[in-house]
Amino acid sequence: MPTSGSDPSCLFCRIIAGEVPAHLVADEPGFVAFLDHRPLFAGHTLIVPRPHVVTLLDLPSGEVGPYFAAVQRVTAAVTEAMDAVGTFVALNNVVSQSVPHLHVHVVPRRPKDGLRGFFWPRTKYVSDLEAADVADRIRQCVMM
Amino acid sequence: MPTSGSDPSCLFCRIIAGEVPAHLVADEPGFVAFLDHRPLFAGHTLIVPRPHVVTLLDLPSGEVGPYFAAVQRVTAAVTEAMDAVGTFVALNNVVSQSVPHLHVHVVPRRPKDGLRGFFWPRTKYVSDLEAADVADRIRQCVMM
Repeated sequence: MPTSGSDPSCLFCRIIAGEVPAHLVADEPGFVAFLDHRPLFAGHTLIVPRPHVVTLLDLPSGEVGPYFAAVQRVTAAVTEAMDAVGTFVALNNVVSQSVPHLHVHVVPRRPKDGLRGFFWPRTKYVSDLEAADVADRIRQCVMM
Repeated sequence: MPTSGSDPSCLFCRIIAGEVPAHLVADEPGFVAFLDHRPLFAGHTLIVPRPHVVTLLDLPSGEVGPYFAAVQRVTAAVTEAMDAVGTFVALNNVVSQSVPHLHVHVVPRRPKDGLRGFFWPRTKYVSDLEAADVADRIRQCVMM
């Protein structure tokens, strides 16, 4: 899985290369940002690292800080430009990831805009013991 | 809006202080991570910066890199521990933000798990001109 360079079969690499048109909002050495063409709301923006990186886990550790600094900056710009009250900032790794090139969505939000931050039925752990077991499994992986 | 220190009325500050129980998966100088008590799926984890910071826009620029390095690391751990295929990584700023202390959700995902990355009806720009105008507004704010 390449972590740098361009994949000529990747839609976002082709946008970055200028081969596919998009409404760019930022075009910088490390990243580009452009409008999602099927927005949840007007101003819905995607921030994409310039090298072809598939998921957050593939992003080299030295690029995580600059990339999310860009995400923070574009989030501020979307909020201001769209006169939004808040934003939804999200990324999908693998599952529900429509384009296999890392992209963070920034969606402007307003109260009662018809969306909910989490719109899915939430569940509960059957017992505190089950939750403790799950936490323990994750904790062991964090420490590895 | 404080960007450091603790807010005694904040649920997440109280979890960080050990005053409210939670299933911790990481407890480090810069951040803590613990299970969401109403998970979308088992293993749904929240990553929280230790200082009381309300939104992504309030996170001091020097803390963005370390915080998202932690998010990347916990995302890898959740994926591995839960034997997930992918993850949904998201944060709400202000709107739909249930606790006013910055937190990134990491939700383990599998194909056909019943969720969709974006579950909301997507819209379209009425015209390319409308999209160009929106992009222009955001671009001007990015450049400020």
